Formats: sequence, C-alpha cells, structure tokens
Amino acid sequence: MEFLLANEVLYIQGGSITPGDEPGLIQRLVRRGAKVDPLDFVGQSKRTLRVEAADLDLGPELTREYPHLTLLTADGDPILASRRADGDHRVFVGKSELNDKALTIIAGPCAVEDSKILREITSGVQASGATVLRGGAFKPRTSPYAFQGTKLDGLRLMHEVAQEFDLPTVSEVVDPRDVEAVSDLTDMLQIGARNAQNFSLLSEVGKSGQPVLLKRGFGCTIDEWLGAAEYILAEGNDQVVLCERGIRTFEPATRFTVDVSAIPILKQRTHLPVVVDPSHGTGAKNLVTSVALGAVAAGADGLLLDVHTRPDEALCDGFQALSFTELAELSTRAQAVYEAARVAHISTSNVMQSAGAV
Amino acid sequence: MEFLLANEVLYIQGGSITPGDEPGLIQRLVRRGAKVDPLDFVGQSKRTLRVEAADLDLGPELTREYPHLTLLTADGDPILASRRADGDHRVFVGKSELNDKALTIIAGPCAVEDSKILREITSGVQASGATVLRGGAFKPRTSPYAFQGTKLDGLRLMHEVAQEFDLPTVSEVVDPRDVEAVSDLTDMLQIGARNAQNFSLLSEVGKSGQPVLLKRGFGCTIDEWLGAAEYILAEGNDQVVLCERGIRTFEPATRFTVDVSAIPILKQRTHLPVVVDPSHGTGAKNLVTSVALGAVAAGADGLLLDVHTRPDEALCDGFQALSFTELAELSTRAQAVYEAARVAHISTSNVMQSAGAV
Amino acid sequence: MEFLLANEVLYIQGGSITPGDEPGLIQRLVRRGAKVDPLDFVGQSKRTLRVEAADLDLGPELTREYPHLTLLTADGDPILASRRADGDHRVFVGKSELNDKALTIIAGPCAVEDSKILREITSGVQASGATVLRGGAFKPRTSPYAFQGTKLDGLRLMHEVAQEFDLPTVSEVVDPRDVEAVSDLTDMLQIGARNAQNFSLLSEVGKSGQPVLLKRGFGCTIDEWLGAAEYILAEGNDQVVLCERGIRTFEPATRFTVDVSAIPILKQRTHLPVVVDPSHGTGAKNLVTSVALGAVAAGADGLLLDVHTRPDEALCDGFQALSFTELAELSTRAQAVYEAARVAHISTSNVMQSAGAV
Amino acid sequence: MEFLLANEVLYIQGGSITPGDEPGLIQRLVRRGAKVDPLDFVGQSKRTLRVEAADLDLGPELTREYPHLTLLTADGDPILASRRADGDHRVFVGKSELNDKALTIIAGPCAVEDSKILREITSGVQASGATVLRGGAFKPRTSPYAFQGTKLDGLRLMHEVAQEFDLPTVSEVVDPRDVEAVSDLTDMLQIGARNAQNFSLLSEVGKSGQPVLLKRGFGCTIDEWLGAAEYILAEGNDQVVLCERGIRTFEPATRFTVDVSAIPILKQRTHLPVVVDPSHGTGAKNLVTSVALGAVAAGADGLLLDVHTRPDEALCDGFQALSFTELAELSTRAQAVYEAARVAHISTSNVMQSAGAV
Repeated sequence: MEFLLANEVLYIQGGSITPGDEPGLIQRLVRRGAKVDPLDFVGQSKRTLRVEAADLDLGPELTREYPHLTLLTADGDPILASRRADGDHRVFVGKSELNDKALTIIAGPCAVEDSKILREITSGVQASGATVLRGGAFKPRTSPYAFQGTKLDGLRLMHEVAQEFDLPTVSEVVDPRDVEAVSDLTDMLQIGARNAQNFSLLSEVGKSGQPVLLKRGFGCTIDEWLGAAEYILAEGNDQVVLCERGIRTFEPATRFTVDVSAIPILKQRTHLPVVVDPSHGTGAKNLVTSVALGAVAAGADGLLLDVHTRPDEALCDGFQALSFTELAELSTRAQAVYEAARVAHISTSNVMQSAGAV
Repeated sequence: MEFLLANEVLYIQGGSITPGDEPGLIQRLVRRGAKVDPLDFVGQSKRTLRVEAADLDLGPELTREYPHLTLLTADGDPILASRRADGDHRVFVGKSELNDKALTIIAGPCAVEDSKILREITSGVQASGATVLRGGAFKPRTSPYAFQGTKLDGLRLMHEVAQEFDLPTVSEVVDPRDVEAVSDLTDMLQIGARNAQNFSLLSEVGKSGQPVLLKRGFGCTIDEWLGAAEYILAEGNDQVVLCERGIRTFEPATRFTVDVSAIPILKQRTHLPVVVDPSHGTGAKNLVTSVALGAVAAGADGLLLDVHTRPDEALCDGFQALSFTELAELSTRAQAVYEAARVAHISTSNVMQSAGAV
Repeated sequence: MEFLLANEVLYIQGGSITPGDEPGLIQRLVRRGAKVDPLDFVGQSKRTLRVEAADLDLGPELTREYPHLTLLTADGDPILASRRADGDHRVFVGKSELNDKALTIIAGPCAVEDSKILREITSGVQASGATVLRGGAFKPRTSPYAFQGTKLDGLRLMHEVAQEFDLPTVSEVVDPRDVEAVSDLTDMLQIGARNAQNFSLLSEVGKSGQPVLLKRGFGCTIDEWLGAAEYILAEGNDQVVLCERGIRTFEPATRFTVDVSAIPILKQRTHLPVVVDPSHGTGAKNLVTSVALGAVAAGADGLLLDVHTRPDEALCDGFQALSFTELAELSTRAQAVYEAARVAHISTSNVMQSAGAV
Repeated sequence: MEFLLANEVLYIQGGSITPGDEPGLIQRLVRRGAKVDPLDFVGQSKRTLRVEAADLDLGPELTREYPHLTLLTADGDPILASRRADGDHRVFVGKSELNDKALTIIAGPCAVEDSKILREITSGVQASGATVLRGGAFKPRTSPYAFQGTKLDGLRLMHEVAQEFDLPTVSEVVDPRDVEAVSDLTDMLQIGARNAQNFSLLSEVGKSGQPVLLKRGFGCTIDEWLGAAEYILAEGNDQVVLCERGIRTFEPATRFTVDVSAIPILKQRTHLPVVVDPSHGTGAKNLVTSVALGAVAAGADGLLLDVHTRPDEALCDGFQALSFTELAELSTRAQAVYEAARVAHISTSNVMQSAGAV
C-alpha cells in the first residue's frame, strides 16, 4: 500500500469535524478536485468524510489548516508510519542494524544487576548470536514496593560492560526528564507497554533522535500503536522499531496473548521493522521458543528475549528467562525458520498486491 | 476488611523471591512468630509465601529489609490503598468534598475552548447541581495530528472562569514537568486512562500534595489500578479518588465496557472515594444517563460527566456530551437513586462483614 | 426506533453478496425506488449495500428472493427483535408476567437438590418477593466429571413443589431432544450462556412456543445475542426475555464482567424484556446486591438470582448464592431503586428521541 | 508431564466440595496414604484440596464415589486429554492420518455449493498437497436469515466428489440428531466454535466413534476447550483433534486473535494433535499465509484452510479463501517451515522436561 498517491482515498475522521468546519472543508476539498462522501458508519459515533484526493499534498495541507482533524489513509493508517520511503527501511543501533533483510536477536537480562552477572550474561548472549544487548535499569512495576530497578547506576554498568564486548544496547526510559541521561548511556531507547501512550515521553524520545524500540501497550489496538509511533516519527525521528509483546485477553494460561496476526498487518501497513518479545508475551519460559519461532515464521524481523545465567536468581521475571543453551539453540532454529518462511513472505506480498489486500 | 491486624494473613509474592532470600526470609518470619507456607498456585508463575503474621509491624519491616518484595494483604490488596484509617475518608477539592456520605457531580466540557462557551457551560453546570468543574486542556490523543487541547491558556481561562463562579476545578496533567504549573491553576489533578501506569507522573502528583482523580487504565486490572493509587499514596498524598471509565472488551457496541462490579469491589477493598465516567465509558450520549444511574445504584460516590452548550460543536467528543437539560435531569434522578440504593449498601456491607466477603 | 418505515435505511450485508447477485440486486432495488450505495468500511471484510428503501415491504421481499442475504436496520439490528409491535411487550410465565412496567424477581437454587431443601428455598423465595422460581436440573459443566444436575427427576420435583406454592418456574434446557419433556415440566425454558449460539436448540425452543429466557453468551456481542433471539422469534415465538449474565474480559476479580451498557442498548434496540443475572455475572455473593441494584437503575426489567437455604451446602455455586435475608432485603431495595430510576428512563428516552440517539 | 503416576499431585476442586463431603473425603484420602492440604487461593471462590496421591487408582475411584468432584492433575488438566498413552498418538481420517510426525493440510470451500465448483476445488486442493477435504454443509450463522448451508444435499455431493478423488472429508455437525446421518457421509466430524460447549453434541459425537475436529470456542479458555475434548474422550472416543481458530479480543483489525501460545501449551498438556485455522482466525486472505506459517513454526500438526476457485463468488467468507496458487505455495512453504522448526521443538521439549516446565 502506497500512501497518498494521486487519487488515493483518505478518510478525515472525527467528532472533531464540526458542522462549522464541514461545509467549508468539503468545499475546499471539492475545489481541490477531490470527491467527498460523508459517511455514517453503523455504530460509529464519529463523523467521517471519505475523500478521493486529487493530489499528493492534500493530506499535509489539511493537517496544517484543520489541525484538529485526523487524517487517515484508505486503510485507516496514520500518515508517516504508513509512508513507504523509497529504498529500504533500516534502523541503526550502534554498529548493528534492524531491517527486513535479516533476523536480529536482542537479548539480555530483564533487570541489570551486579557487574559479574552482567558480564557473564553479555558474554553468553554475544556467543549465542545476539547483536544487541537489552537490559532493564528503570523498571516500571505495578507496585511501588516492588524492585524498581538499578536506574542510572545500572545503565552506567551496562554501558561499560557493553563497550568491553562491543555490543550496542537498548534500555527502557520511563520519564521525559531522563531521556537525555538514558540516551547518553544506551544506543536505543525502549518505550515499555505501560508508557505506550505516554505522549510526552514519546515526543521527547522523538526529539532525541535516538533509535526507539516501541512496545505495544497491552490494552492498545494496532491503530493506537501506530498512532504512538507517529508521535515519534512526527518529531523527525524515523528510527523506530515496533515490538509486539502480547495483549491482554480473557485467557489466563499466559500472562498476555501474543497477537501473531499483528506481525503481517504491520509489515503490510508500515515500513517500520517489527520485533516480538515472547518472554514478556507469554511469561513462561517453556513457551518462549515455540512462540518465538512462530513470530519469525509470521514475518517478524527480530526477537527480544530475556536471558539469565541463573534464571532462578534473577531479580525479576526469572521464570521466563532463557539459559544460554536455550538462547543459542533458539537462535539457530529461528535462523532456519526465518529462511524457510522468508520466500513465502516475498511471494505472498506479491500475491497480496495483485489480490489487493484487506 | 482491616489491614495487617495481628494474625492478619499476608502474601509475599514475586518471581522476586529469590532462592537466596527465601530460607533467610522464612527463618526470620518464623522467628517473628509467623506461620509461613510456600504455595505453588496452579498456572501461577510467581512463588508466593503465605504468612500468618504475628504482629502488626511485620509488613513495613519486610518492605524495608526486602525492598524487592511485594507485600499483599490476604485479599491481595496493596498496603496503603487498603488501609482503613480511623474516622471517615474525605477528599477535599477546593470548597467541595468527595466522600461516601453524599453524591458528587463533576461536570464540564471535554475540552476547554473559548471563554464565552466556557462561561455558558460553567453557569449551566453549576445550575444543574455540579459542585466541581471538569475541563480538558491537555488532551492525550491517539494521533499527534488530532486536536491536542488548549493547554496552559485553556487552564488559565478555566481558572479565571471558575473563580467567577466560585467552583473548584479538575483537569488532566500528562507530563511530570507540568505538575507544578497545572497545580497552580486547578484544584484537582486528573490522571487519564493512558497515563494510568505512568509511574513517574503518579509519583510527581503524589509529591504535589494536590488531590488526584485517578482514572483506571482501559487495559488495567483492579489490582493494577490500586497499585497506581499506591504510587500516589506512597508519597504521603492521601487525597486520591478512583474513577472507573470503562475497560476494553470485545464488545463493539460501546467504546469501552463500564465495569460496574469494580465499584463494590473498590468500596470493599479500599477507603478511597469511587466515581464513574459514563461519558467516556460508553462514548454514546444516549447511554450516559442509564449507565450513570447504574453506577450510582452500585455504590459510586460521584459521577464525571461531559457537558456542552452545543454538543455538536464541541471540539472533541461532542457526540457523548450531555446538554444542560439532560445534566439537570440526570442530577435529580441520580440523587433519588443514590438515596434509594444507599440503605441497601449500608446493610449489605453489614451482611458482607458477617458473611465474610470473598 | 421503528423498523422499516417507508424511507427507512437498511443495510444488506454479507460476503454473502456475490458479484453475481449484486448488479441484479442493485437494479431491482433501484427499480423499487430505493437509493443504493455500496460501502467499503475501513477494516470491514464484508461488502455492504446501504439502501434507502422506498417502501415498507422491501425487507421481507429481499429475504424471500435473496435467502442468503442478511437484512439489517439502519441501527444494524436484526429484523424481528427490533420491531416494536404496537401496544406493549409482555412475556407471560404461568401466572406471572415480565414487562417494562414492573420489576420481576426470579430466584431459586442454582441446582435442584432434595425435596426438603427445595421446599425451604421455594417458601423463602416466595416470601422474599420473587414471582418466578428458577432452578437448575440440566447443568452444563466444563468438565464431564463435575456434577451434571438432577435432570428430569429434579424437574419433576421442582414442578411438584412449584405447584404446591403456586409459583411458575424457569429451568435450563440443553438438548433439542429434551425441549418437549422440559416444556411439560416448566413454565419457561432457559437457554444458558454455553448454548447461546446453539441454533438447533434455539429453533427448537422457538417451535415449542414456550416462553424463553435467553442468556447472553459470555463471548458474544450484543448483535450476536439479538441474532440468537431472532432464531427463536423467527419460529413465531415472541415470548423471549434477554438475560445479561456477564461477558469474559481480562479482569480476574470477577468471574465475568456484567456489561451494564448492554441494558440501555437493548432497551433502545429491541422491545424484548431485559433481566440481569448478577449471581453468575460476578460469581461472588458480596457483589451481587450492588450489581443487581446497578442493573435495575440502568433499566433492567428483572433480576435472576441464586438463592440457597445454606449457601455453603449448595451442590454448586454456593459461594454466590444469597440467603433469604439477603434476598428479601435486595428485593425491597431493588424496588425502591427501580422506582427512583424509572422516571429518569422515561424522560431520557424522550430526550433520546428528540436528540436522535447514536 | 505424566498423568497420575504414584505420588502424582492432583487437585480436587469445587464449590462442589460440600462441608458434608470434606471431612469424610479427607479421611478416606489420608487412609489411602495421600497427603491432603486444603488451599484457599487468593480471589479463588472454589475450595480446593491439594492431594499427594499415594497410588495410581485414586483418581478414578474418587470420580466414582464423589461424582460431583472435578479431578485435575497438578497442572490443572482434565484427566483423559492429559493422559499420554504409551506409543504415539494418531487420529485416522479415512486413509489419511493426523499425528505429530508430519504436517497435514486440510482444505476446501467454506460452504459446499454446486458440483462443478466442488469438483474444481477438490481437484485443486488435492493437487496443492491437501490430504483431507473440508467443506461446510451445515453452516451456523449469526442471523437466521443468512445462508444456512446446503445441509445433507451438500454432504451427499461432497461424499460423491470426495470418493471420485479418493480424499477423506471433514464437515461440521451442529445437532445431536444429525450425528448419525453426517457420520455416514463424512470421515471426520467438525464441532464448530459456536458449539464448543454444546455438551449434548459433544457426547453424541463421542458415542459415534467418528474422528472429531474440535474447534475452540472464541470465548473459551484452554481449560474449557480441554474440558470439551474430555466430553468426547469420556465416551471412549480417543480420535480427537484440537483446532485453534482464534479468540475474541478488543483488537478490531482481525475478526479474531489467533492464540499462538495455545499451540505449545496444548502440545505440552495433551497428546491430542493440534491444527490451526488461520482463515477464520484472521478473516482476511492476506493474513492467512503469515499466520499459517507462524502456527506451523509454533508447533501445529496441521492447518485448516478455506480455498475457492473464485474466492469472490464464494457463497460465504470468500474474502478469506485462498486461491489454488496461494494454497500450493503455502503448502510448500509450510512444509519447509515445519521441518526447520521441528528440530527446535524436539530439543525444546527436552529442555522443558529438564527445566520442569509450567
């Protein structure tokens, strides 16, 4: 799907379309050569105008002149996330790179602890084929009395260890006031599920220009997730990776339900790399490998994995952390699955284009 | 339910209980005269210790000495939110008050617009029996291109108008860096659903000492909601009101599903006042009155309502805003329902105590 | 909302609209004076034709000539459930009646056990103001090894006891082959949540002509629920009562989440009486009263309640059963809330009509 | 996990444990050498006894003597579904077989239509590597006015065509009264999502001895799904295949959300083959291939796919049907992914056993 080509259909949606706006809006759209069709969707509380736009620049112009309108493409995608820039779409994390040409493994401890353990983990992770080190220093926890992470001390330690091993790092930032400090100590900023719609934080990491790993909120739709990405992209920062980590459902057998369909949907709607976190998504170590392989086969560009030297001793979420042996094996298998499935995706997307998807 | 009386059962829960901790932890608990019983719940990934505590101070001591543990009461409630201080539980908003002795109506426009409209609304709202004016100035929106609110200008305007009408105000704050400025211009800080687990913001409003209206995250459980309240309470700020505004479910007929059961659960588990927002909870003006009356009958201490002079002209969410006539009528009926249901709740809670509620 | 007046808008929806059909269909609709507008909804996989029908009989004719089409009103309601017959809408259960003019209490044991206990319960239930006795004899259980109910023996017992006390009865039927036998022994057939889309059973109870209490499936939308009602109504049986009993959500604090918004939605979309089952909806005795009062205030025409002489000895679900004292008190309070809220609903619906509800 | 070995832990769960039962029950368990420990789970309304059983036969004996109790293994699984018989676990469908040694493709039209189209589809499906033909004749539809399927005529046609092509068939049965007739015309009976807890139907297909494809209810937990399987197994019919077809969540981008984690959970908890239906699970043709490959990589033993000669002309769900080209390509890729992922699963399960999973 290409965004806003001539004659592209776009939707202007909102309770935000006031009767005051509408006639003027419709007139100017029509004057611009657009075909406008007001719709009342069944059970839809918002007014929506269906617009067959006559030229490429209509969208931005409308955003400028009607700042309170939401512009959506015919597929209901926000603007930047869905634009397919010419050439390829790559996100650079230090010397590593996330793209749709190779599988990237991001692994590390859920929480950064003491330096001995971290060195062991980093060495094991690197040996197992991971090219980015993840580690939690600022830990958002449901209870204020739960372990809150080692914060900046943990980040300094991770920075030091990562340099020894020459591995780029990703770590979570939870407060707009910390973005600069965290940016100095990590190569990629992670936005966690609980901050998935913390728009102040999203704009701040957008301004930072740092690459961002944006987790999906466990209560957020794909559209809301793309809206969150748009807050970063709208600041001129195009280095965004989307991370599916499970949504909340009625099924109690897993902590969350990994939404595997979200992977092909995102690969079709946006140019941003997509990774999956089966560790938090399942919350159970014995499900991680299967769900990880499933995600890769479904089109994920990478995996985010909890790993620990002694899972049972982890300061948090040890029960879902893989051992080095398990990580090494998973990397090998995931690579094999990636290659086996890849051809399928290429040809599928062809089929898709001809078939005119969704 | 009283918290941590002698012989109270408490749970110490967490992947955060490391094998290193456990023996020492159990020993010291036993030495303190507690009966300890490690449990492995079916399908529960966390280790949990069931502790029959021998004395009142055990909880805080454990928090101090094992900072990474989560302490829960026998009902699984976090600590402060579930403590029932002696005497009554009141939250003061300017000259108004929220408590469990009377029904409070909080009403106003979803978004603060121009001063003429705001004066009309404030006057109408006051005439209709509302004792607190709500108005959105910082608007978290799914898309960065949607109307983001009138921000500090809107707050200054609302402050000025509210003073003319001598009505206290509540408005949303979305960034920890704005807490001071917003506190200067409003009587109560609102934490919106998208920031329900923005822990930096929660701690900051906790430190501010301002009364807080804490909305439930639409993807959050009641336990997570109480955990969020705990972040505010843990800063020494006990002026917290909980606001149910609907959770996300598979039902597409409403924007969200108002969780009416949450009302009695919260009234039983915590001493904090509970209000309900049927405007955002349903997203449909013709459902607001019925759901509002239902919430009041189920035990809500107050209502948060979208109102507008000309709903169709509202800059956002006009389709769910009530007119003055509708608000006035709703206030009258809600008052009648409140009184009719109230006796029931008093005697129910007696029954409950004798029955020993779940 | 009236169904299919001249110029009523209706939707013809379906992957079931084949390209073969469509041109011919559109032509004949246009010939009949209708304005037809094919829509492609965002993210909607089904083709839909929006039809401004020129005359009243178009709907039935289309059903006849295009049997594989689904006809929906402008509000997306199925046909019969949404038709408001002239006069009032009453469902007769023996000598009792469910309607929108008075509150009906249906109460009894979750499972029919021995005759002594059943007599005690029936006597207590009647004394507490219930006008219909409910009792489970065929119990659908998740496990085949769980207690499956006392079946026909239980029904015979309930029939005998109910006659002594001159109370009409409602009991569940789970197999189309049992409909006749169950009909002989009860005054109203209950369709449980697990059979909410068991269409063979629905058609069979429709043919039986017996009044039907149709529970909502815990995984079903309101539209699917109305579709299920339509299966009964389409057999010429208009004696259908809808029973909200909670839907499945991510919230673990209650067994299900009672969808309070469904009550006003159903009262607006259909003429069928609506009752609520807070016992199964919450699964917790100490939440039943509050949720019941909430349901009544939100517009429910009745309540379905689990009651037991000695809740702790109930063969199933005792933990959610009310004692007689609790039932008696609930009846009184519910009556008071019903009256207090009622005026609101009448005037709201006026407001609604003038406001032209979503 | 093995079921009920000596010293196996089992749980006896239920509001169904009456005070009357309990002392006697505990005594007899203790006399039988079991260690019994009553538990009160946080927020659990049911009493549960944790039993360390001293001998293999305790479970069945308890079922016999306390028919209203539910016996669960230490993992909370129902009995038969979780028993791992010695040797391998195979389900025979005509000359085909579903097992965990090879990938099975089941494909065909959502609805059986005229014989020409069906022959084309069957020929295409067979050429594309499918070894079982699926086709819907009894179609459960939300509305009674929607196309209800070609019923027995359709089945006769499918039977005739399948014999010509020497392909075994699977088709849905929706009424216990039809089980015999449908069994005569198909090789495998499908239980659809809407009948996933239609226990009369489940018992009937159990008695029939026919192989059964049991779809998950879109509102059912994995435990409920296994309970449904148990109804079939308990009739002595061990030829059951589980089919994941998506659950209902708040995400509107797909019709349902395929629960990919359910695949490894089922492979660990039960010996029954697991297949996935990405056609109904996503409801969108351009997502089917990716989700199918994901399911296979996650451990699925087979796929159930909608296929049509001219998807746009399908009487229902054409929008999700694959063309022959797409099916052929999917089969090839799925086979490659199956082999690449397989090694992973074998070694994972080893890791799992050593790690002592779930």
